[in-house]
Amino acid sequence: MASLKSLYEPNTNLGNALHTNFDVDFVIDYRFATTSKQAAESQFTALIHALNSVGLTTEVRNGDNCAVLIFIKVASPRHLRAEVYRSRVQDWLYGVRTIAPEKDMQKAFTAEPIIEAERLRLVYLLITKPKNEGGAGITPKRGEWKCVESIFALHDHTFNKAWIKDLTSKTFLTQKDLTEIRNRFGEKIAFYFAFLQSYFMFLTFPAGVGFCSWVLLGGFSPVYAVINGLWCVVFVEYWKKQETDLAVQWGVKGVSKIQHKRPDFKHESVVRDPITDEEVKVYSPVKRLSRQMLQVPFALAAALILGTLIATCFSIEVFISEVYGGPFKSYLVFLPTVILTVAMPTLSAMLTGFAAKLTDLENYETVAAHENAMVGKIFVLNFITSYMPIFLTAFVYVPFAQVIVPYLDVFQLAVKPFAENEKQMTAPKAGFQINPDRLKKQVIYFTVTAQIVGFALELVVPYIMRTVFKKVKEVKADRASKKGGATATSTADDHPEESAFLVRVRNEAELSIYDVTTDFREMIVQFGYLSLFSVVWPLTAVSFIINNWIELRGDALKIALETQRPVPWRADSIGPWLDALGFLSWLGSLTSAALVYLFNGNDFGPGGNPSNIKIWGLLLTIFFSEHLYLGIQLGIRTALGKIDSPGLQKERSERFAVRKQYLAESMGQEAAEEAAEGGIAGGEKINRKSLEDEARDSTLQGHGTPEERFWGRQRGVDETLTVGRRYIQQAAPKASPRAGGEKKEL
Amino acid sequence: MASLKSLYEPNTNLGNALHTNFDVDFVIDYRFATTSKQAAESQFTALIHALNSVGLTTEVRNGDNCAVLIFIKVASPRHLRAEVYRSRVQDWLYGVRTIAPEKDMQKAFTAEPIIEAERLRLVYLLITKPKNEGGAGITPKRGEWKCVESIFALHDHTFNKAWIKDLTSKTFLTQKDLTEIRNRFGEKIAFYFAFLQSYFMFLTFPAGVGFCSWVLLGGFSPVYAVINGLWCVVFVEYWKKQETDLAVQWGVKGVSKIQHKRPDFKHESVVRDPITDEEVKVYSPVKRLSRQMLQVPFALAAALILGTLIATCFSIEVFISEVYGGPFKSYLVFLPTVILTVAMPTLSAMLTGFAAKLTDLENYETVAAHENAMVGKIFVLNFITSYMPIFLTAFVYVPFAQVIVPYLDVFQLAVKPFAENEKQMTAPKAGFQINPDRLKKQVIYFTVTAQIVGFALELVVPYIMRTVFKKVKEVKADRASKKGGATATSTADDHPEESAFLVRVRNEAELSIYDVTTDFREMIVQFGYLSLFSVVWPLTAVSFIINNWIELRGDALKIALETQRPVPWRADSIGPWLDALGFLSWLGSLTSAALVYLFNGNDFGPGGNPSNIKIWGLLLTIFFSEHLYLGIQLGIRTALGKIDSPGLQKERSERFAVRKQYLAESMGQEAAEEAAEGGIAGGEKINRKSLEDEARDSTLQGHGTPEERFWGRQRGVDETLTVGRRYIQQAAPKASPRAGGEKKEL
Repeated sequence: MASLKSLYEPNTNLGNALHTNFDVDFVIDYRFATTSKQAAESQFTALIHALNSVGLTTEVRNGDNCAVLIFIKVASPRHLRAEVYRSRVQDWLYGVRTIAPEKDMQKAFTAEPIIEAERLRLVYLLITKPKNEGGAGITPKRGEWKCVESIFALHDHTFNKAWIKDLTSKTFLTQKDLTEIRNRFGEKIAFYFAFLQSYFMFLTFPAGVGFCSWVLLGGFSPVYAVINGLWCVVFVEYWKKQETDLAVQWGVKGVSKIQHKRPDFKHESVVRDPITDEEVKVYSPVKRLSRQMLQVPFALAAALILGTLIATCFSIEVFISEVYGGPFKSYLVFLPTVILTVAMPTLSAMLTGFAAKLTDLENYETVAAHENAMVGKIFVLNFITSYMPIFLTAFVYVPFAQVIVPYLDVFQLAVKPFAENEKQMTAPKAGFQINPDRLKKQVIYFTVTAQIVGFALELVVPYIMRTVFKKVKEVKADRASKKGGATATSTADDHPEESAFLVRVRNEAELSIYDVTTDFREMIVQFGYLSLFSVVWPLTAVSFIINNWIELRGDALKIALETQRPVPWRADSIGPWLDALGFLSWLGSLTSAALVYLFNGNDFGPGGNPSNIKIWGLLLTIFFSEHLYLGIQLGIRTALGKIDSPGLQKERSERFAVRKQYLAESMGQEAAEEAAEGGIAGGEKINRKSLEDEARDSTLQGHGTPEERFWGRQRGVDETLTVGRRYIQQAAPKASPRAGGEKKEL
Repeated sequence: MASLKSLYEPNTNLGNALHTNFDVDFVIDYRFATTSKQAAESQFTALIHALNSVGLTTEVRNGDNCAVLIFIKVASPRHLRAEVYRSRVQDWLYGVRTIAPEKDMQKAFTAEPIIEAERLRLVYLLITKPKNEGGAGITPKRGEWKCVESIFALHDHTFNKAWIKDLTSKTFLTQKDLTEIRNRFGEKIAFYFAFLQSYFMFLTFPAGVGFCSWVLLGGFSPVYAVINGLWCVVFVEYWKKQETDLAVQWGVKGVSKIQHKRPDFKHESVVRDPITDEEVKVYSPVKRLSRQMLQVPFALAAALILGTLIATCFSIEVFISEVYGGPFKSYLVFLPTVILTVAMPTLSAMLTGFAAKLTDLENYETVAAHENAMVGKIFVLNFITSYMPIFLTAFVYVPFAQVIVPYLDVFQLAVKPFAENEKQMTAPKAGFQINPDRLKKQVIYFTVTAQIVGFALELVVPYIMRTVFKKVKEVKADRASKKGGATATSTADDHPEESAFLVRVRNEAELSIYDVTTDFREMIVQFGYLSLFSVVWPLTAVSFIINNWIELRGDALKIALETQRPVPWRADSIGPWLDALGFLSWLGSLTSAALVYLFNGNDFGPGGNPSNIKIWGLLLTIFFSEHLYLGIQLGIRTALGKIDSPGLQKERSERFAVRKQYLAESMGQEAAEEAAEGGIAGGEKINRKSLEDEARDSTLQGHGTPEERFWGRQRGVDETLTVGRRYIQQAAPKASPRAGGEKKEL
């Protein structure tokens, strides 16, 4: 644990600064390096006034490099509680909570104390909500708040340390661990950890099956493909259920209905809502649709650009490794990898930036809609970059190599400087043999090497960068102070009691913002390799299970150390990633079937010659596999839908409690039962048997409606019974034929 | 309109009996022909007591043939209102209603009067609900109530007449018409009419396109196939939306959650529910699942039995019409049709009976689950009987005829008595030409002839039967009365004022029970022909549009005249038929693509020779078509999901009203705002500027926690502003470098 400790306390002289946050809820990093002094001052004044006007207390301290830090907490516990209460009532009104909060606030908070995530979320909303919704309307880096660099909560380092220690000491997270994450970091991040945990747990099965399959059956085994496909269905359907269940247990089911308005939304016109009579800002949906249509050319262009790059590098690599026979071959083989490594991130970043612009252009009203649209585009980009190389190998290189390779001579250019003669660079016109290991090697690269590299880029590199950066800064500061003169360093002003704390806060202000989308993307792409290509190399899941054990802890470390404490947003699901998961799982049924058909029993597959493939057989296999998949999916969905779960039980019991209470309160004794009783007891029980039939008949004939007369002929139960029995006597088969005869003159 | 009138008033001497129901809610037809007199009397007594115990008033009158009629109405309006109110509160608790009924009952019924369907449904439930749920527990023909033949409401003939007249005078039903049907016959039947109406309206499009396509493009046009597939998607998705919308407008959305227990449900054990603490009767779901598994062999056996019958008749027909050359050919051709006509209904009825037994065996707890399971099985049977002949022609006869026909010699037996020589009965070994018209003729048969025959069987035949039956009865009665002696006819006892009414009720007691499932089945099967095979004969939709205009009026006539008035059940959708609709629409994308691929540009298709088919081309076409279909479906579903509708608007406005009311009532002035105000106003506005920094610092150092001291350094907004401005002055880039210098000694 020593290394963890050293990781954890990068600066040991911070001492007890890690143990208290001085009750600070949020810190605003106010930077004015590029603003005039006057503007900075007036914006600062406006900022403090805005914060105070919504019931927040502020303290200001010096920051690093032209910055001040504004510390924020809620002015009074009473105000906080009112905010929490209001939010809970809103939840109830939107159907997120089944039970309304107790009308007595005191009781409400005893029954359900305020959790940290709830407090931080509401304070953050208080700071950032628009003014007409009761917030201070502070929007970092935007509009009138250009100087507000970031708004962040302070890490609870005591908790973080215990948390990381706890995580590293166990294999599986319990429900309690997940709830703890939710209490600290909010449901959105808790859902990520819950997903990762479920995925990790589920991976044990394909890892076991994969290992056995690798030992016994080798690659491209139809048995493994079927089991793997089945596992994908079960996992996706299980997660859907698990997701709903967690949402119910955390009291956030349907929370996505409570939408946060996007501050960047630009409205075209203001319309009065006929229902709520409020003014609503609207943007023509037709216009938005027409802009959304741009996604199609965007996806095509991205596929074309990235595809061309990948295909080119791929072709060069094939050319060099399998055609080229000249010197430096073993070095030249890395040429395409170098091209890819340089060009790909640049292109990806460019396309991601373009995707962000496109999403802005689509101008969504709510934060959630905006994020979902962005996630969709990012998924498309990642799909292309992650899977296209393997698709090219499996479905272009292997079946068509003999047709294509002779045309690869165009890449002579790449090796011309090194080749000694023409022959070294000319593809053989016939008899070209494909490299059967290429596909497997590629899958191993993406599922092992790339995962490790990714982890390093995600966690280790930033850590080193940060350490180096800090060292450089320290050296610079040292040199500056040696050069003489009391330059206005930020620390000079610090009160000794707070100085260690302020150093810590200044460090946290420098950290980047945690984005759970990136981590989700990584996991979904990983799931894709398993679903689409693991039939090539069944050990895939074994690699992933190791990777994901580290990944989960690494992500926790990243949140705790590498990034600012995230705002604890709520969520009721993993959102659009679920669709991506379902899509990859479905696509897996197609690719696995195709791979098995092409390669089973023959590592060369069609051996580069398309005429070796029976296309109708391939199509039939895919068709069959897909429909089997869809059928099984339907079955599993139905079966899982019938199984009870803690969340559903909780929901039912809450619903029942509400019903019972309501009935006991307002219906029960009073209105209904009394009315019902009255109906039964006070009916038409007149029963005056003494009246003769004829007499009554004549009395009735005179007055009353025909209906009254109809219902008056038999007064009370007894008369009905008498008359009925007589009818039965008369009509019953062969029993005293004239029993009721004497009464027939009625 | 003359014929309608005569249809409507089959017995003109009923006179004004059609104009009043004497306030009768329900009539029980109590038949004791097969029961001993004593048992009949005691059961009758129990029946009357049971009815009276739940607040119902009874009158008894004589019935036909060993029967008495028990007339039922709710004892007092107050009791009825209490029932309605209780039901509305239950709706609210289950989330069917958004707004709770007014606590003041008087107001509640003024705002929302009791509609007829609501009254009849609740009275029916009062009669039939188990005793522990507050009903009388009368279960017709079951258990202790063997003599209760049926419980039926009386037709409102005045309404019925006006209704039929109105329906026949217009082409499209309006929203108001549908709501009227719902008010009279309940949501379940109203949904049928709404579906039929939407379907009819939508049919205009494929009818138009089909006609143009028939004139311009002929059969098997890919253009028509694509348009038809697109139409199917749009229609199914539109109906889903429309269905929800209607459910909201009729206030029944989610009503399927309120389940009616099945009286026939047999429990294995009684468990105490941990949540509700009520005793629940349970049946092992594993056992049920194992019995549900029987559906698979059932479906296979049904397919085998019906399939064999159909295939045999089909083969005989092909043999006779295309191989046989002997005498009587033109008569013998009808032989298989005769076999089918005789055997099919018998087999179907047998299998349906078997399906019903199987469903009983599955032992569902609720009426809805039972019905859905039964509908599923009926759909499978209907699928086989309706579509298999065409499937055989299109995908067996046309591609494989040349292979199969030589083997048809086995059917020589069928024609042996008529043939003159062997040659007449021997298939040519080669050069057999398929009949290209067979497929089209078959489709025309199923979409025109069969529809007309079905209509006749459904409406005209029962009408004739009933008329003849009545005539026979009249003649018999006449003869009996002529024979002499005052036999105890049922009418002898009638009060003259009621006698016409009683004659009418006795007639209604003889009518059969309306089953909306049959009508739904007919429409769904019809939709199947359009979706699966209309590419063969594009005029299909034209035939259907004519048929359905009549069908809707015919069904209304059937309800009004041929059957007892149905119990107005509620429903929030068309239930499992929606799945059948989706399935047929999807399957259509496969069959249409296959038909177009096989037959386009060549009426002979592959001409009976399988080697003429490029299987990979066929598979690719189907694969492409299916995925295009699924993609478009997703798109249309998303697009329709974004469109607003009257129902959704109603829902939103109700939700909003609830929210507004709640906030106004309990939150608004009191708790929240006051608390919030307190927070802002009473914060830390101490602002004692006079205190010196040093002085304060020392005072604070002595006592208070570090947190208190941290937040105490700047008291109030003004001090924060002052300090903040000073920091900005100090750090701001290149602006009066030592401006705040003199204050630095803090």
